[in-house]
Amino acid sequence: MPPKAEIFSQGEEIVTGQTIDDNAAWLSQRLVEMGFQVIRHTAVGDNLSDLAGLLQEIAVRADCCICTGGLGPTLDDLTAEAVVKAFRLPLQFDVEACRQIEGYFAARGRIMPEVNRKQALLPQGALRLDNDWGTAPGFALQAQRCWFAFAPGVPYEMRQMFEEKIRPQLEQRFVLQPCLLATIKTVGIGESDIQQRLGQITIPAAVRLGFRARRDEVQTKLLFPHDFPTEERLDLVAAAAEHIGDAVFAVDYSGSDSVDLAAAVDALMSATGQSLAVAETASQGLIAAKCANYDWLLESRCANTAQRLCRLLGVDDFSGIETETESSLANALRAGSGADLALLQLYAGDRGALHDKDKSIILHHVLAHDGGVSTGTASTVGPLARKQNQAALLALDFLRRYLQGLA
Amino acid sequence: MPPKAEIFSQGEEIVTGQTIDDNAAWLSQRLVEMGFQVIRHTAVGDNLSDLAGLLQEIAVRADCCICTGGLGPTLDDLTAEAVVKAFRLPLQFDVEACRQIEGYFAARGRIMPEVNRKQALLPQGALRLDNDWGTAPGFALQAQRCWFAFAPGVPYEMRQMFEEKIRPQLEQRFVLQPCLLATIKTVGIGESDIQQRLGQITIPAAVRLGFRARRDEVQTKLLFPHDFPTEERLDLVAAAAEHIGDAVFAVDYSGSDSVDLAAAVDALMSATGQSLAVAETASQGLIAAKCANYDWLLESRCANTAQRLCRLLGVDDFSGIETETESSLANALRAGSGADLALLQLYAGDRGALHDKDKSIILHHVLAHDGGVSTGTASTVGPLARKQNQAALLALDFLRRYLQGLA
Repeated sequence: MPPKAEIFSQGEEIVTGQTIDDNAAWLSQRLVEMGFQVIRHTAVGDNLSDLAGLLQEIAVRADCCICTGGLGPTLDDLTAEAVVKAFRLPLQFDVEACRQIEGYFAARGRIMPEVNRKQALLPQGALRLDNDWGTAPGFALQAQRCWFAFAPGVPYEMRQMFEEKIRPQLEQRFVLQPCLLATIKTVGIGESDIQQRLGQITIPAAVRLGFRARRDEVQTKLLFPHDFPTEERLDLVAAAAEHIGDAVFAVDYSGSDSVDLAAAVDALMSATGQSLAVAETASQGLIAAKCANYDWLLESRCANTAQRLCRLLGVDDFSGIETETESSLANALRAGSGADLALLQLYAGDRGALHDKDKSIILHHVLAHDGGVSTGTASTVGPLARKQNQAALLALDFLRRYLQGLA
Repeated sequence: MPPKAEIFSQGEEIVTGQTIDDNAAWLSQRLVEMGFQVIRHTAVGDNLSDLAGLLQEIAVRADCCICTGGLGPTLDDLTAEAVVKAFRLPLQFDVEACRQIEGYFAARGRIMPEVNRKQALLPQGALRLDNDWGTAPGFALQAQRCWFAFAPGVPYEMRQMFEEKIRPQLEQRFVLQPCLLATIKTVGIGESDIQQRLGQITIPAAVRLGFRARRDEVQTKLLFPHDFPTEERLDLVAAAAEHIGDAVFAVDYSGSDSVDLAAAVDALMSATGQSLAVAETASQGLIAAKCANYDWLLESRCANTAQRLCRLLGVDDFSGIETETESSLANALRAGSGADLALLQLYAGDRGALHDKDKSIILHHVLAHDGGVSTGTASTVGPLARKQNQAALLALDFLRRYLQGLA
């Protein structure tokens, strides 16, 4: 049986709903991939006896618990005190922790406020977890059955501390048999469609199939037990991707970097050394915004109507979205920008339909390249923000398909 | 003392981190606004004895608990069984529930699969909560100290059921004294700065002051008890906003719509009836993307260097960012677009600094209007995505200040 882990989040802002506790989900994913069984998440507010009581419960129920929040300098940061109360340990002043906190302020040209001294008080016998990314040091200790690690609640600091300080400890302290997760990423196709396509292949009972619809992609997840044969695993992932079809833009494996659609396009653009110019209508700047990381995007123009876009591109008459107009617009953009590729994102319908969440619009993608002009269409519905995002994604995906020889 | 509430989420996808439990945050916000004190969130997976044990714990600890998930038709949907096990109640077949589930399928031209009959089995004595938005009916019952309501985990169905079926029950069953929340929203100024400025006014102990740094704004929250005098409350919010200064772009009150920076700009633009054209460099399309809702934004151009932007705007020589060049660029954009206002987002430094998270860049905002050209600068640091977002926000905020007569 895998060791049992829990996640414990402290903070009034979490129990009152002001902050969504995405730390818990992030930590759980990491722990599951490492081979833990996560059995419970708990969040409580800034109340000393609630906190101490919860720590006592977890100490007899779990093998490991990652706790976030409550390490700050203010009165409502109660974690160290709660540990003291729960496990009857005294607090000790940690000279090195204090030195690091002073150093953090010194590097910013400031003197450590007196209130921050509190953060250098750690429970006796605890292992200090240095915080190289903020002021609050974390700490870890064994209490009864459970090894507790306490990290800051600020997501960036928490993630860094988990990866650099907590993960190595967990790997030393537990015998873990990590699961393997493959994530097949798509745009432009829904969960139920994917599910239906996957119905054609047999997925062994030991493999857990899951879906996650995110704003910019749908993820199809296959979680393999540690002892699942490698070859069978690779075959199954390949078969799943093949059945889902060419909507698949990336397959991520646990441990590797997550690739979003813009990164998938970047890999293809960089491989061919081409540059791109973009003109957008419904996506309203989001294509450019999603590609901000990449130097191959030379310029982008956007306008709130196709007529105005024509003016921007110096094309005179616009008589509706027709193949001919589309081509001349895309060619004008390519010539004017000097880019190798020119991507046009247009839509059919008036601006009223764009704003009406119940009306659908037809998106047109037009790509001018040295072989001519390629076009595609797709339909989208929902609130404006969704249409805008879908317009950007589907145009980028059209470019991806062209670069892969699929469009 | 306000009644104590808990949130309980069931689902393997939550404890394994595949789904972020935003139901818990949504429900907590509603409950706090209604006048409950939310003391704990718990999520557990699909394990019958864990579920039953947790229900027993909550039954003696809280006055009210909203539970989500586990009402579906499949084997891992264990909520009703867990209630039976925890409180020794038999399951009863609910004819009306079954009729509604059959009706749901009939409306979609399908026959109810046999597996869905399970969803019509409710614990004896439970109040059925009709689900007019999906298949799984919810239910509610009193067990020891606690009134439990069980709703589906699908966010849309859960929210509808809460508003239409659960909220009226809560209002009947509890004596509630709702708190009042004022949220002061700013950009371009950090939490610690705000805290320091607020140090100059006295905040009564009964008022809870909180901060929340979000990607697009910093929120300063003042939570007032139900019996706090109205006039004093309004005075305190006004004094707080005044001390924070002109970085404040909106003040939201609980119950009213949340106003983001683009919406604040929209209110000002619509009041004056002016139109806008935008040119962006570091923000790379994000100004346009954030204003996609609004017809006063006529067009936007973005380029990955200021040189290329000059070419796009038909301005010949670009000799670095100087007041003169900035003005001619902004005037060229205003003239070329025919818009009443032209907003230019530029930055000083090479693209290398934009990509380097440790290097800061200086942002330049330039606004051409019928009274001439106004300019401003700000500095930003961090990863590219942060610089890009800050560039968009600070340029929009510069426009907001101009429209309010502050720039």
